[in-house]
Amino acid sequence: MTGPANFSSDNVTGAAPEILEALLRANAGPQTAYGEDEASRRIESRLAEVFETEVGVVPVATGTAANSLALSVACPPYGVVYCHERAHINVDECGAPEFYSGGGKLVALPGEGAKITPETLEGVIGGAGIVHHAQPAAVSISQVSEVGAVFQPAEIAALAEVARRHGLAFHMDGARFANALVSLGVSPAEMTWKAGVDLVSFGATKNGAFAAEAVLLFGRMRDKLEELRYRRKRGGHLFSKGRLLSVQLEAYLAEELWLRNARHANAMAKRLSEGLAALPGAALLQPVEANMIFARLPAPVVEGLRAEGNRFYDWPFESPNEVRLITAFCTTEAEVDGFLAAARRLAGAEAAA
Amino acid sequence: MTGPANFSSDNVTGAAPEILEALLRANAGPQTAYGEDEASRRIESRLAEVFETEVGVVPVATGTAANSLALSVACPPYGVVYCHERAHINVDECGAPEFYSGGGKLVALPGEGAKITPETLEGVIGGAGIVHHAQPAAVSISQVSEVGAVFQPAEIAALAEVARRHGLAFHMDGARFANALVSLGVSPAEMTWKAGVDLVSFGATKNGAFAAEAVLLFGRMRDKLEELRYRRKRGGHLFSKGRLLSVQLEAYLAEELWLRNARHANAMAKRLSEGLAALPGAALLQPVEANMIFARLPAPVVEGLRAEGNRFYDWPFESPNEVRLITAFCTTEAEVDGFLAAARRLAGAEAAA
Amino acid sequence: MTGPANFSSDNVTGAAPEILEALLRANAGPQTAYGEDEASRRIESRLAEVFETEVGVVPVATGTAANSLALSVACPPYGVVYCHERAHINVDECGAPEFYSGGGKLVALPGEGAKITPETLEGVIGGAGIVHHAQPAAVSISQVSEVGAVFQPAEIAALAEVARRHGLAFHMDGARFANALVSLGVSPAEMTWKAGVDLVSFGATKNGAFAAEAVLLFGRMRDKLEELRYRRKRGGHLFSKGRLLSVQLEAYLAEELWLRNARHANAMAKRLSEGLAALPGAALLQPVEANMIFARLPAPVVEGLRAEGNRFYDWPFESPNEVRLITAFCTTEAEVDGFLAAARRLAGAEAAA
Amino acid sequence: MTGPANFSSDNVTGAAPEILEALLRANAGPQTAYGEDEASRRIESRLAEVFETEVGVVPVATGTAANSLALSVACPPYGVVYCHERAHINVDECGAPEFYSGGGKLVALPGEGAKITPETLEGVIGGAGIVHHAQPAAVSISQVSEVGAVFQPAEIAALAEVARRHGLAFHMDGARFANALVSLGVSPAEMTWKAGVDLVSFGATKNGAFAAEAVLLFGRMRDKLEELRYRRKRGGHLFSKGRLLSVQLEAYLAEELWLRNARHANAMAKRLSEGLAALPGAALLQPVEANMIFARLPAPVVEGLRAEGNRFYDWPFESPNEVRLITAFCTTEAEVDGFLAAARRLAGAEAAA
Repeated sequence: MTGPANFSSDNVTGAAPEILEALLRANAGPQTAYGEDEASRRIESRLAEVFETEVGVVPVATGTAANSLALSVACPPYGVVYCHERAHINVDECGAPEFYSGGGKLVALPGEGAKITPETLEGVIGGAGIVHHAQPAAVSISQVSEVGAVFQPAEIAALAEVARRHGLAFHMDGARFANALVSLGVSPAEMTWKAGVDLVSFGATKNGAFAAEAVLLFGRMRDKLEELRYRRKRGGHLFSKGRLLSVQLEAYLAEELWLRNARHANAMAKRLSEGLAALPGAALLQPVEANMIFARLPAPVVEGLRAEGNRFYDWPFESPNEVRLITAFCTTEAEVDGFLAAARRLAGAEAAA
Repeated sequence: MTGPANFSSDNVTGAAPEILEALLRANAGPQTAYGEDEASRRIESRLAEVFETEVGVVPVATGTAANSLALSVACPPYGVVYCHERAHINVDECGAPEFYSGGGKLVALPGEGAKITPETLEGVIGGAGIVHHAQPAAVSISQVSEVGAVFQPAEIAALAEVARRHGLAFHMDGARFANALVSLGVSPAEMTWKAGVDLVSFGATKNGAFAAEAVLLFGRMRDKLEELRYRRKRGGHLFSKGRLLSVQLEAYLAEELWLRNARHANAMAKRLSEGLAALPGAALLQPVEANMIFARLPAPVVEGLRAEGNRFYDWPFESPNEVRLITAFCTTEAEVDGFLAAARRLAGAEAAA
Repeated sequence: MTGPANFSSDNVTGAAPEILEALLRANAGPQTAYGEDEASRRIESRLAEVFETEVGVVPVATGTAANSLALSVACPPYGVVYCHERAHINVDECGAPEFYSGGGKLVALPGEGAKITPETLEGVIGGAGIVHHAQPAAVSISQVSEVGAVFQPAEIAALAEVARRHGLAFHMDGARFANALVSLGVSPAEMTWKAGVDLVSFGATKNGAFAAEAVLLFGRMRDKLEELRYRRKRGGHLFSKGRLLSVQLEAYLAEELWLRNARHANAMAKRLSEGLAALPGAALLQPVEANMIFARLPAPVVEGLRAEGNRFYDWPFESPNEVRLITAFCTTEAEVDGFLAAARRLAGAEAAA
Repeated sequence: MTGPANFSSDNVTGAAPEILEALLRANAGPQTAYGEDEASRRIESRLAEVFETEVGVVPVATGTAANSLALSVACPPYGVVYCHERAHINVDECGAPEFYSGGGKLVALPGEGAKITPETLEGVIGGAGIVHHAQPAAVSISQVSEVGAVFQPAEIAALAEVARRHGLAFHMDGARFANALVSLGVSPAEMTWKAGVDLVSFGATKNGAFAAEAVLLFGRMRDKLEELRYRRKRGGHLFSKGRLLSVQLEAYLAEELWLRNARHANAMAKRLSEGLAALPGAALLQPVEANMIFARLPAPVVEGLRAEGNRFYDWPFESPNEVRLITAFCTTEAEVDGFLAAARRLAGAEAAA
């Protein structure tokens, strides 16, 4: 039997054991500081292998740092980044992209499933070359989206084509990169540069690292690597003991840990969502494509689960009894099943009441 | 016997075992993200205890983040920070303080031992209330200084008095806070707020943490705590898995680890510097007050030590055979003695040549 | 008879003769530079008289400077300004508010007549005190709005009440302040601080000055006057020959020039719009409340008027034959009547065709 | 006979009559706004003629705007601008260059006559390619310097050669461009691009305009013209009634007004300085090469002149009785002679006392 579950987010977890062990192994002995350690030097070629192309790599510790640094080399101070109105960069980073770009502007677009569409994007891009208007500079999507949707490679390519036609850089916030990847069953290349993505915030923290992300630059965007390194230092994101980041990333990519973790988290989400959907009076509000669940549950179920110590967020604050649940690499079947058993019991209590 | 030594910096080390063990212990189970974990909630009261006063605490992962965030709440975009011309904030952070303050200006002052003096400071502060001039806003010192000198509490108080008279905030870059503290043998309170310090970048990374620092706010400066938290998030420095930082800091402060580590590093520096000073043709260029050594060594000694794999920096790039060596919490007597033995052998070889 | 008319904007005009003459008179003799000239010293008390209250005054030369400087003291770098999606600050200033606020964020709201409503505003304000979200800081409205609508004092008061309840500063972009004022027939005080407005960009350029605006600070916002002066200098907006700005403003406010100019421009808009509305196949798209006209005209009328050298903009680029026409202080009845005569002729040609 | 003289600065004057008259002539009739007026379209080719080469031109109203906009396209946010410690950009613009560059850093150098030397410059440039250091980006000199010295073309070329070798842009703050030019008796080309200057802040305000300057871009730097235009708009420096700026510049360059004005101001400075130097107990502190005089005068002379209403600055605040006097295009011989007569009288009174 297990205690109450915490489905608040995939960042309430600690680090995966494999990553902790790698840190322990890498701790001994001196290493050149500031990203010149041995693992840092290996990580670029490892990612090139994973992505089947040359890639510029800048490891950082947080997703906000990765996103805002990426956008800082894609958007001038007088530039515009187009994104979904619910995008993390738009609503959850306290203005970090504006800060790092030196005052760039985010233009927020609507779209089902927190996904922007080529039509909406095409319709809003404007003002290029007109001095009164902030200048179109970049497009950013979140893969997985903020409500759990996964962009198909063809959807990415269609958006990237609009971006390309207007000369805009195309950025992917991959805080849940691996969860999307295993959901799609495609290669990292197919989900990114082959579909027209120029910059990726490659997240590992939510999927097993303690604090490790990397900005990835593809194609011509690799020309920005040197600038990005100055901006990282200037943002206070160059770690002196750089092995802390590089070793996490290396272990994350070793022996498919990242894929195994993501497959597990997604499987737990599937199990949890199917159980919830089967409750009387419950409904899934979004398709469950990765490790995020949005559901409407009967009020006594929500209240009861919380009263028993389980944790999850109300979402999106618009309606009673709509909740968000997120599973992680370390979520256990027992946790899911215990939670579902409680929910069923509470739903039954409701029915009987 | 030991291999070659690496005295390049105190940040070429890994983490202290006590800190790694604390991370391992703290890894299990969910914790609320974004600095709301249990250790984060404990760390403020622990630091209040250590500093014998209420203190606003904002943990971050790098010294550059700590310095530039601290200055961002002490210096408006049109403000001036006075500091030594060799200060880390002036020459080693790629403009991070300018970035975080929104374009503030650093005015660089001369001074022996990389320490500014009250007279120089008093002489340069000007322009207050005159709209043409960037406005005096803050003073920053490094404790330990960039060439290894330690400010006495009375020296700090004298500088702080100038700052106070002109209405300036007083910041201490404490990247090597503990090394200075044990060198002085005073209390944390005596070295900081009792001497007039308003903000401290409290460094742990160089003295045993993997990546952990904290901005400390004393007295009225605690009113800036909320602003500082927005700026941290916006700078990408709020860790989702906040325990990574808080647990390092907690272990660092537990059972006097920080003081023990610093005493050891300083003792190793003393041992190493005394051995070097005794070499024929060698001279110490700065008093060794903490864990940094600046010395002139005979050319064959420098070359020979490097040829045998030892690592240290030429410093300050002005003269041949002037070098910097830094010891750390994990430097061993054997390393020091092996290095000195090699140096003596090489110096003898020189004498014989 | 007159030549073709230019109704592109009220800024295609030169300066009013009264203002030029004042400049000529004020040109002789030395005057202390940088806003310490005699007229600059008089302008604050003159505006206090006009507004029936103490007011902080910072003259600048452009509306973009006035808006972005005003917002820079109302919105921290991590703050949000709420405005209409068509607001000049949002779409026509190339990101100046973001620049001057150090990276603040504009959240764009919908609303009929380019006016935001209390309900929409209330519904979108959020995230206060939550470190992930840019912080609600200010509301900005344009009086006259970007499609020619005028806010009633009661409408302003209702928005200001929402702002006040959430602790937000309330800014009015008054590029066409006088046109709105005479349209309403209220006092400057009633249209601003008595209705809850904290900061005004008081525009004179569009209504007879060559290049003169002023940021006005009311009530507690006057505490920001000193900061605003540093920011003006730092933005390059402090004129050495300050009389150029102050004399324009003084002449603008003398002998009701500003009110007479605005009344005339509005009257010309009324005359023009009534004539256009009477054309077969024509329709006004917005009520004409000040000096801006938005109309749908038959295609041959639009084409014919342009072919004959008349100038005006297509607006808002969404539909064929929708145009914007703006009258100014120097628009003549003859110009209006000549334009209307041509339009009628062309409309008749259409009818006959 | 004349009243007291005002030698505080060349910006305490009004505008030259020729410039006012041109504004009057240009005032009538509509002109396309935002720098698309007829005079704006002529000014680029006129300046190309004056400078004997293609030139990118961006008119603005203030010297601070010109300097900081120029540097904003020459210095990235993580860049360094090298300049003299007394440079206007360093001490008199309230941090505008830091603001416009997004946080760039000014490194202040010493030098006689407020002129930096190639040796000093060469000695301080460093850190290129090293991520810890703000990156060398530009050099800026003031022609005339802040203490009245004029750079010879060969001196400029020597500095520019250092800049070129390190890949730095070379900027000239030409607030007193014409005064230097006529002092040297060379062509505008010889004083700028032929000597290696890439960007010029071409000042007219101090020499007869009301408020008109222009950023000039030479050679490859012209590629930055579009970026500069966005930055001008975003800085609030794009005038809607653009003719105000362009007409001033056009009249300034017509019929050698700029050269005649500068020759006159310089001649008046010569006359004034020779008279002062002949006073008993007086001495010139700097050679008088343009229109600025730095002198030590007997205390009773200084006090007496001020008591009689004359105005000039103490300078540089270091010693009693050291003053700065600046002549302008409209300084009259009678003013100079009246001032000198008073000084002689006061000096005699001193001798007799």
